[in-house]
Amino acid sequence: MRIARIAHPEGVAFVALEGTGDDVTAAEIAEHPFGPHQFTGRRWPLADARLLAPILPTKIICVGRNYAEHAREMGGEAPADPVIFMKPNTAVVGPNAAIKLPANSERVDFEGELAAVVGRPCKDVPAERAADVLLGYTVANDVTARDQQQADGQWTRAKGYDTFCPLGPWIETEVDPADLAIRTEVDGEVKQDARTSLLLHPVARLVEWISAVMTLLPGDVILTGTPAGVGPLRAGQTVSVTVEGVGTLTNPVASR
Amino acid sequence: MRIARIAHPEGVAFVALEGTGDDVTAAEIAEHPFGPHQFTGRRWPLADARLLAPILPTKIICVGRNYAEHAREMGGEAPADPVIFMKPNTAVVGPNAAIKLPANSERVDFEGELAAVVGRPCKDVPAERAADVLLGYTVANDVTARDQQQADGQWTRAKGYDTFCPLGPWIETEVDPADLAIRTEVDGEVKQDARTSLLLHPVARLVEWISAVMTLLPGDVILTGTPAGVGPLRAGQTVSVTVEGVGTLTNPVASR
Repeated sequence: MRIARIAHPEGVAFVALEGTGDDVTAAEIAEHPFGPHQFTGRRWPLADARLLAPILPTKIICVGRNYAEHAREMGGEAPADPVIFMKPNTAVVGPNAAIKLPANSERVDFEGELAAVVGRPCKDVPAERAADVLLGYTVANDVTARDQQQADGQWTRAKGYDTFCPLGPWIETEVDPADLAIRTEVDGEVKQDARTSLLLHPVARLVEWISAVMTLLPGDVILTGTPAGVGPLRAGQTVSVTVEGVGTLTNPVASR
Repeated sequence: MRIARIAHPEGVAFVALEGTGDDVTAAEIAEHPFGPHQFTGRRWPLADARLLAPILPTKIICVGRNYAEHAREMGGEAPADPVIFMKPNTAVVGPNAAIKLPANSERVDFEGELAAVVGRPCKDVPAERAADVLLGYTVANDVTARDQQQADGQWTRAKGYDTFCPLGPWIETEVDPADLAIRTEVDGEVKQDARTSLLLHPVARLVEWISAVMTLLPGDVILTGTPAGVGPLRAGQTVSVTVEGVGTLTNPVASR
């Protein structure tokens, strides 16, 4: 199932998307999409609605250098264990919302990523049970002020600007994350082109690692890391991240 | 005014604390303490209630090496600009709740800190207007698995364990943060003893720096950094952090 959050003529709702192509219908979910959920019976053509970020997470946990080739392009080796960091949830925007470049950065990069969405409160989840605690998968862009990342050492400022965490276009609940194509394009030119099978620490291992530290809550998002090919964004460009079997997240880039 | 959050015989509430010593009364605030607030008229003796963390923040932004002597004891110089990082809000516990030592760390340290609590949504706040966006001040312990902090480079795991962010005992709305004594004791022995006048980047500067990056929301908490004297905690000990004019935050330490 594809779960989205939309602005429709009467308000905002979680919906399930049905159909394909130009003929997608959004069926409203009562309350929220966690656990057994019911439908209200209200439906809209997706063409009449606007996709929002599919979830507003209480926290966003990210993983650094989780593809070997990206670790090399950053000038280091991949760490033996996952290295985690956070983005503030105020950085979240949805599909087609502008990424705003801060005036005080000379270099803001895209980082296309597969993102896992937590479905239930959990702690100390063994890797073999990770799938049980996940609602599904979406696509993320871990936008990064590269110059500030290098200057600060800690990555929170560089990755924490408002609009620096596009999420979407929806949450796919049925996909197997083991070996999906992941591709980032800027103005139609392919910049990142990899497969999630190259993740050094796969999703289940990340759930185990992170939940050994902190309780995960429904809606929390895990950004699994970006493959090689990161590069700069300029105002006026459009960046798209596609994860096979999930969808394409597209955002324009604007000056602040 | 001292604003607290308590568990009382009939539930949980934000309250204003009135009186001193053994004779404090908790007056229930309707809804939440942001903006103009009203009282319900219900009151309890504080002795019959349990203090909880005074706020459940949407995010916790922390500042590293913000006292020169602490920067030196960590083996480096203080950075020219604030370096920020985050703790997950799942790490928050209240006064007298146990700090639980993870089995996979050999060294977990206390870090007593003054914490500022945001009172209204804000972005790009100049330092001279910082006081306008703050609700008040509380006390924090930025508990840190020192070995993991050094191993990871990024500090999220080391500082993100459940129970690693004691906050409390309440929010003091009237205090001037410019020059307050701050003291940490372990089992009654003084370990940290400094003044907030030694903050390299004072509170107003931190609000300006952080709000230039991200929107701050009511209840968000800024941990302003710890002075020199950090050291390890062991199960069975009790750690207390006192900020003059605010209060004392006391937590026992337990093995997991």
